[in-house]
Amino acid sequence: MKLITKKVILITLLAMIIPIELQANDHPKLILTKAGVETIRQNLGQVPLFDSSVETAKQQVDIEMAMGIDTPIPTDYSGGYTHERHKKNFVIAQKAGALYQILQDDKYAEYVRDMLFQYEAMYKDLPVHPKPRSYARGKLFWQCLNDSNWLLYMAQAYDSIYNFLSEEERQKLNQNLFRPFADFISIGNPQFYNRIHNHSTWGNAAVGMIGLVMDDQELIDRALYGIEDDGLELGLKDNDGGFIKLEGQKTGFLANLENPFSPDGYYTEGPYYQRYAMYPFLIFALAMENVKPKAKVFDYKNGVLLKAVNALLNLSDAEGNFFPLNDAQKGMSYFSASLVTAVDIAYHYGDQNSQLLSIAEKQDQVLLDQAGLSVAMGIRDEKTQPFAKQSINLSDGMDGDEGGVAVLRYGDEDLAVVFKYAAQGLSHGHYDKLSFSLYDRGDEVIQDYGLVRFVNIGQKGGGNYLKENQTWAKQTIAHNTITQNQTSQFKGDYGIGSQHHSELHFFDASRDDVQVASARESNAYPGTELHRTMAIIKPENFAKPLVLDIVKVASKSTNQYDLPFYFMGQVLKTNFDYKAPSSLVQMGDSDGYQHLYLEGKGKPSVGSTQFNWLVEGKFYTLTAVTDAADELLFARLGAEDPEFNLRRDAALIFRRKAVGDTLFVSLIEPHGRYSPVSELSVNPNSNISALKVIFDSEAYTAIAIETLDNRSSVFIVSNKDAAASQKHQLKIDDKEYSWQGPYHLR
Amino acid sequence: MKLITKKVILITLLAMIIPIELQANDHPKLILTKAGVETIRQNLGQVPLFDSSVETAKQQVDIEMAMGIDTPIPTDYSGGYTHERHKKNFVIAQKAGALYQILQDDKYAEYVRDMLFQYEAMYKDLPVHPKPRSYARGKLFWQCLNDSNWLLYMAQAYDSIYNFLSEEERQKLNQNLFRPFADFISIGNPQFYNRIHNHSTWGNAAVGMIGLVMDDQELIDRALYGIEDDGLELGLKDNDGGFIKLEGQKTGFLANLENPFSPDGYYTEGPYYQRYAMYPFLIFALAMENVKPKAKVFDYKNGVLLKAVNALLNLSDAEGNFFPLNDAQKGMSYFSASLVTAVDIAYHYGDQNSQLLSIAEKQDQVLLDQAGLSVAMGIRDEKTQPFAKQSINLSDGMDGDEGGVAVLRYGDEDLAVVFKYAAQGLSHGHYDKLSFSLYDRGDEVIQDYGLVRFVNIGQKGGGNYLKENQTWAKQTIAHNTITQNQTSQFKGDYGIGSQHHSELHFFDASRDDVQVASARESNAYPGTELHRTMAIIKPENFAKPLVLDIVKVASKSTNQYDLPFYFMGQVLKTNFDYKAPSSLVQMGDSDGYQHLYLEGKGKPSVGSTQFNWLVEGKFYTLTAVTDAADELLFARLGAEDPEFNLRRDAALIFRRKAVGDTLFVSLIEPHGRYSPVSELSVNPNSNISALKVIFDSEAYTAIAIETLDNRSSVFIVSNKDAAASQKHQLKIDDKEYSWQGPYHLR
Repeated sequence: MKLITKKVILITLLAMIIPIELQANDHPKLILTKAGVETIRQNLGQVPLFDSSVETAKQQVDIEMAMGIDTPIPTDYSGGYTHERHKKNFVIAQKAGALYQILQDDKYAEYVRDMLFQYEAMYKDLPVHPKPRSYARGKLFWQCLNDSNWLLYMAQAYDSIYNFLSEEERQKLNQNLFRPFADFISIGNPQFYNRIHNHSTWGNAAVGMIGLVMDDQELIDRALYGIEDDGLELGLKDNDGGFIKLEGQKTGFLANLENPFSPDGYYTEGPYYQRYAMYPFLIFALAMENVKPKAKVFDYKNGVLLKAVNALLNLSDAEGNFFPLNDAQKGMSYFSASLVTAVDIAYHYGDQNSQLLSIAEKQDQVLLDQAGLSVAMGIRDEKTQPFAKQSINLSDGMDGDEGGVAVLRYGDEDLAVVFKYAAQGLSHGHYDKLSFSLYDRGDEVIQDYGLVRFVNIGQKGGGNYLKENQTWAKQTIAHNTITQNQTSQFKGDYGIGSQHHSELHFFDASRDDVQVASARESNAYPGTELHRTMAIIKPENFAKPLVLDIVKVASKSTNQYDLPFYFMGQVLKTNFDYKAPSSLVQMGDSDGYQHLYLEGKGKPSVGSTQFNWLVEGKFYTLTAVTDAADELLFARLGAEDPEFNLRRDAALIFRRKAVGDTLFVSLIEPHGRYSPVSELSVNPNSNISALKVIFDSEAYTAIAIETLDNRSSVFIVSNKDAAASQKHQLKIDDKEYSWQGPYHLR
Repeated sequence: MKLITKKVILITLLAMIIPIELQANDHPKLILTKAGVETIRQNLGQVPLFDSSVETAKQQVDIEMAMGIDTPIPTDYSGGYTHERHKKNFVIAQKAGALYQILQDDKYAEYVRDMLFQYEAMYKDLPVHPKPRSYARGKLFWQCLNDSNWLLYMAQAYDSIYNFLSEEERQKLNQNLFRPFADFISIGNPQFYNRIHNHSTWGNAAVGMIGLVMDDQELIDRALYGIEDDGLELGLKDNDGGFIKLEGQKTGFLANLENPFSPDGYYTEGPYYQRYAMYPFLIFALAMENVKPKAKVFDYKNGVLLKAVNALLNLSDAEGNFFPLNDAQKGMSYFSASLVTAVDIAYHYGDQNSQLLSIAEKQDQVLLDQAGLSVAMGIRDEKTQPFAKQSINLSDGMDGDEGGVAVLRYGDEDLAVVFKYAAQGLSHGHYDKLSFSLYDRGDEVIQDYGLVRFVNIGQKGGGNYLKENQTWAKQTIAHNTITQNQTSQFKGDYGIGSQHHSELHFFDASRDDVQVASARESNAYPGTELHRTMAIIKPENFAKPLVLDIVKVASKSTNQYDLPFYFMGQVLKTNFDYKAPSSLVQMGDSDGYQHLYLEGKGKPSVGSTQFNWLVEGKFYTLTAVTDAADELLFARLGAEDPEFNLRRDAALIFRRKAVGDTLFVSLIEPHGRYSPVSELSVNPNSNISALKVIFDSEAYTAIAIETLDNRSSVFIVSNKDAAASQKHQLKIDDKEYSWQGPYHLR
C-alpha cells in the first residue's frame, strides 16, 4: 500500500470516530450526516467503486433534470404512467439530494426544492387515488404503501437540502405537504398503518423519517409505537386475506421489528418480502442511530436487524436469487437496490465482515453515503473475502419457537435443499408445511412455483396478485409436500393456518459427508402427523452428493396421500409403464387440482421406482420406494387458466390411496452432464440399484441405498429422541447398529 | 510493438513462406507439416492462446494416459460406454499425436502406437457391430459414420507418429487395420460411402486421409471420385428417408463438395449439419493442399470451402448459436470443436480476415497446428476486429439457383429475421417453405422448433432421431409458415419436396432504415401460389425496429390457411376475446396437428388484432390485419407424445377458412423491457394504433402502419417486377406514390 493511501485512510478513520453532537438544525442528519459528507468529500476521486456510483447517479439525475419535472395528476395502477412517474420522482429526488451534498452543486438542491413545491402545490387539494382496488388507497398512488415509499425517500431528499431552504419554505412544505402526508398514511389509514405487516413497516418508517427531519416528536413517537386508539375492529382482513388487527398486539416500528423477525433474523413472510421490508427497517433504524443514538435501534432484539441481512443473503441460490418461499416473484436477487442498502449498512454499522464485500463487488454499486464509502474503500483496499454460504437453520417466530427454514448445502452450492417447516408467514404465506425445493448451483432442479403475479406489469391485472395466486400458488398441491385427500393443509384457511407452525425435530450440519434436517407437522391435517427428514449424503464413490427424503405419515384415519416433485427440464426415462391420455382433463375441482392436467398415469413395476431427467445440461435420477398399488402421475400445470397466467410446468406425483400410516422414501441423485455444443453425455444413468426400507418403527426408520457397484449405505433416523447425547442400539436383520445422536450413517 | 516481437514475427513469416518439397516419407504432412512443426516449436511460450491450447490438450491427454488404454468390444449405441470410449480414443489419439510433434516427447508417440496396435489386434476378427438400427452398420460403432470419424482422426494421429514407427510396424498397421478399415466403410458399404450426403463426406475424407498417410493412390482416388461401380439400385433410401442413389449422380469427395454447397457457401442441409460436415471437408482439403497442392482443393468451385465458413458464421445468432434450419439441435454453436477448425483454417489459409480473430477469441482455443498458431499470433498482436454480422442472402443449390436463406439484421443483432425459401435440404429437410424465425440478440422471439432428437443421450431412443421428428418437427404446421387444408407442403413427401424449391423475388439490404426479402413458392400446394415479403423497418420515432410480414396467397381453389407464430415466453394481453376449453383435445389427426392441443379459440374484435407478450424481460406486440371471420387459435404442443419427447411450446395460429386468394399481414414490434430485480416495466405497451392494407392487386400490395402518436408509414411492395431500375407509380386514395425499385417506404 502506498504511503499516500495510508494517510488518507488514517484521516478517514479519524473523521469517522470523532463523536458528533447533533443539533436540531444540523442537516443532513438522517442517512448522510455532516461529518459523513465531510469524509466523503475528502475521498472523492480516490475510491473507484464509490466514484463510479456517484457518476452513475449523476448521469441518471442529470438526464431527469434535463427532461424537467413532471408531477401528473394520479390516475394509474402500477405499470401505468402516473404511477411509474411518481415512483421515479422520489428515487431521483433522493439521489439528487445526496449529489447536492457530495458535489455541493446548487442545481441539485434547486431541482429537489422545485419538485417538492410542485408536490406541495398539488397535495393540498388532492383527493384519494381514483383506482379502487386497495384496502388502503393512497393519494399519489393507488395504495398507501406506495405513498409511504414516496415519503421515506422524499424525507431523505428533504433532509439533504434542508439547510438550503429558507425557514419560510420549510414551514410551507411541513404544513402543506409533509405533515398532512404523514397524517394521511397513518391516522388517515390505521388499517394500513397500525398492524404487523411489511406495509406498516413502510408506513411507520416513512412517518418516522419525516418526523426526524421536521424534529416532530409526535410523528417520531407515532412511528415507533403506532397509534394507540385506532378504532379498528378485531379480525378485520386486508385484500390478501391477511389479518389487520389481532387482540393485544402492539403496533408501530418497534413492534414490527419485534414481531416478524425471529431471533435468527428470519422474516416470517419469506426472503422476497424481507428484501422489500429491509429498506425501511434499515433506513429508519440508521436515521434513528444518527439522530437519536440513545434509542439503540440497531441493538434492538440482540441486533436482529443486522442478523437479518445475513439471514437474507443465506436464503439465496448460487447466483444470488432468493429462494421463493411463500409469495415471491422469481428472479428477485441480492442485486436489488434494497440489498445494496442492506449490504452496505450491515458492513459499515456491523462488524465490517469482509465477506460482505464480495457481494458488494458483484452488485457493482454502493450507497452514496458513509456506508457506501466504507464498502468501496474496503474493496479498494483488497479486503474482500468470498461470501461463504453454508448449511443454515433459521428459526421462525418472534421468539424463534415457531418452526423455521433449513437450508442444507453441499460444496460450492453444488446442491442446496431448502426445507420449510415454518409458521404461516402472514398473509403472503403458502399452505406448504414440510415442503422443499432443490437447487444445483443457480439452477432449480425441483422447484417451488413462487407466486402468480407479474409485479408492475400492467397488462396482467394491473401488476397485482392474480386470482390463481390463491387458487393455485398458495395451495398445498402446488408444493413438494404431502396433500391429504386432495385438500390443502389447514383446509387452505388462513385463520387456521395462522394458529400453527411445524416443529423442528433436529438439524445437524456438523459433518461434511452428511447433513440432516428433520421436522414434524401435526396440525395441517388433524389426526395425521407428518414427519419429514431430509439429508444430503455424499458417499465416497459418488462424484456428487445425494438427497435422501423420508416422509413418515401417521394417521388415525385412512387417506389418500399425494407427494409431488415439481421437476424442471426434460423427462428422459422411467422404469415404470404409464399411459398417456389422448385428451387432457383436470385432476380435480378445487384446492389447486383444478389447475393440473393429467398427462400420464402408471404403476410401479419394481420396488425402486426410477425417474431420470435432464435440467440445464445436468442429469438427475429420482429413485423412490414404492408399493405395487401406488399411482405414478405425470401432471402438467395450465388447466382453468384462460388468461395464461400460469407456467406450463410439470410434476411427477406419487399417489398412495386408502392407507393410514405410511412412509414415502426417495433419493435424488445428480449424476452427470450434457453439452449441446460437444454433444457429449457424461454419466447419464443412475448409479443406484435399489432403495430399501430395511426397518421402520415409531422409534426408528432405516433406509438402505444400494449402488450398481454393489456398495450399500444405511441411514437410520431416530424418529422420537433427537438429543445429541442419546445413545442408540438397533438390530436389523441380525446386524447390530449402535450410535449416538439423532441419526446414523454407515 | 517491441523490437524483439517484430523480429520473432519476421522469422515466423519467413518460415511460413519457405516452399516445402514434400516427399512420400516426410511425416507429418497432412495437417501438421514438418515446416509447421518447426515454426510452432520456435514460437512455444510466446503466443498465449496457442500455449494455453497446448496446455489444455496436454492435461486432457495426460489424464487419459494415466488411466490406460481401453478398446472394449463394441456393444452400445451412442451414449453407451463402448461408443463413448471409442469416440474418446480417436479424439485423444489425434491430440496425443500433435503433442508428440510439438513437445517431441516420445511418451505421446508410444501412447498412440500402443492404442493403434490394440485396435490392430481386435480389428481383424471384429464382426459387424451388433446393434442393428443403421442402414450402414460399422464395426467399432453402430454406424459407418462413426467408424469414419474414427478413421479421419486416427489418420492424423498415425501421420504424427509415422516416422516414430518402424517400417515393420507400419506394414502391420496398414495391412491389418487401416486398409481393411478403409475398405469396409467404402466398398463394404457403398450405400453409405457412395452418395451425396454428409455421411459420405466423412467416409470419403476418412478414406482419403488414410490414403494420404499410406501414400495409397487407390484410396486417394476412391476418396476423391467415389466408387465407379457400386452395384446400388436407383431410388434406394436410407433410414432417414433420404435417397441413396439418383441417376447420373457423381460421387466421392469432390462431388460432395460440388453438390450440397451453393456458390455462396450455403450447405443445403442447413448450418447444423454444415457444422458437422465442415470438419471432414476442411481437414481433407487441407491435407490435399499440403500433400497434393496441385489438386487445388481449396480453390475448388471458386473457393467455396472458405466461403462456407463465412456463410456458417453468419447463420448464427448474437450468442453464436446456429439458426436451427431443418433438422438441427438447438444450442449447437460456433463454440463447437469443428468451428475452431473452420475458423482457424479459414483465417490461415484464407485471407487472414481479422474479424475471424474475434470468434477465435471467444472460442478461447486454437488448433495445435500452423493455422492455430497463426490465429493465436494474430490475437496476441492485437489484430482482432469484431465479427460484423450483417444482413445476408445466401443462395441454395449447386448452381445457386434453388432458392436460398435470407437473414435480415438490424443494429448489433437487436433483431434478426431468418427467412427460408430454400430447396428441400436432402433427408434432413423440413417442409417449411417461406417460414421464418425471429431473434432479439441471443433470444428466440418467434422460434423454429428444431429437431426431435436428444443427440447422444442414450435414454432417448439411443440418442437417435425420434419418431416425432417425422410426425412433428418436419411437418409444415411446426413452422411459422402457411399450412393449407391441414396438410403439409408437398404432402410431406420427400420425393416431391426434393423436386422443388422456392424462388427469390428480391433481397435488398442496402438501406439502414429498411431491409427487405421477398420470395415465392409455387409448388408446395399445386394450384396455390404463396408469396411472402418480410421487412425490417426502423421508423425514426421508434426505439427498436419493426418486422413487417406480408403473405400473399393466390389460389385456384378455396382452402383453409393456417399461419402460426410460435412465440416464446409469456402471454400478457390480447385485444380479442377467446374461449379456453376445459379439457384439451388434439387439433387434428395427422401432418403434425395430432401433436397440438387447442388451448384457446377466439375471433378478432377489431381489424387490427393485437397480441402482447414477454420474452426474457423484453416486451413484444404482434399486430395483424384480420377479417371478422378469422379464427385465432392458441395451440400448445404435447399431444400424442407419450414419451415426453416434445417441449410444451405455444403458438398463436391465424386460421382463415374457405378463401382462395387472400393476404396475411402482420407486424412484430419489440417495445420495452422488464427486470425482475428492479421490478420496473419500461414501455410495456404497443405503440401501434392500426395496421391496414390500403391497396392490394396482383401488381402491388401497400400497407399502412399507424402509430399512437398519429404518425403513419406506408410500405408498398411490387409483387411482379423486382428490377432495381424499374420505376413505379401508384395512386392510392388520391395520393400519388412514385418510386424506383421493388419496394417503397415513406
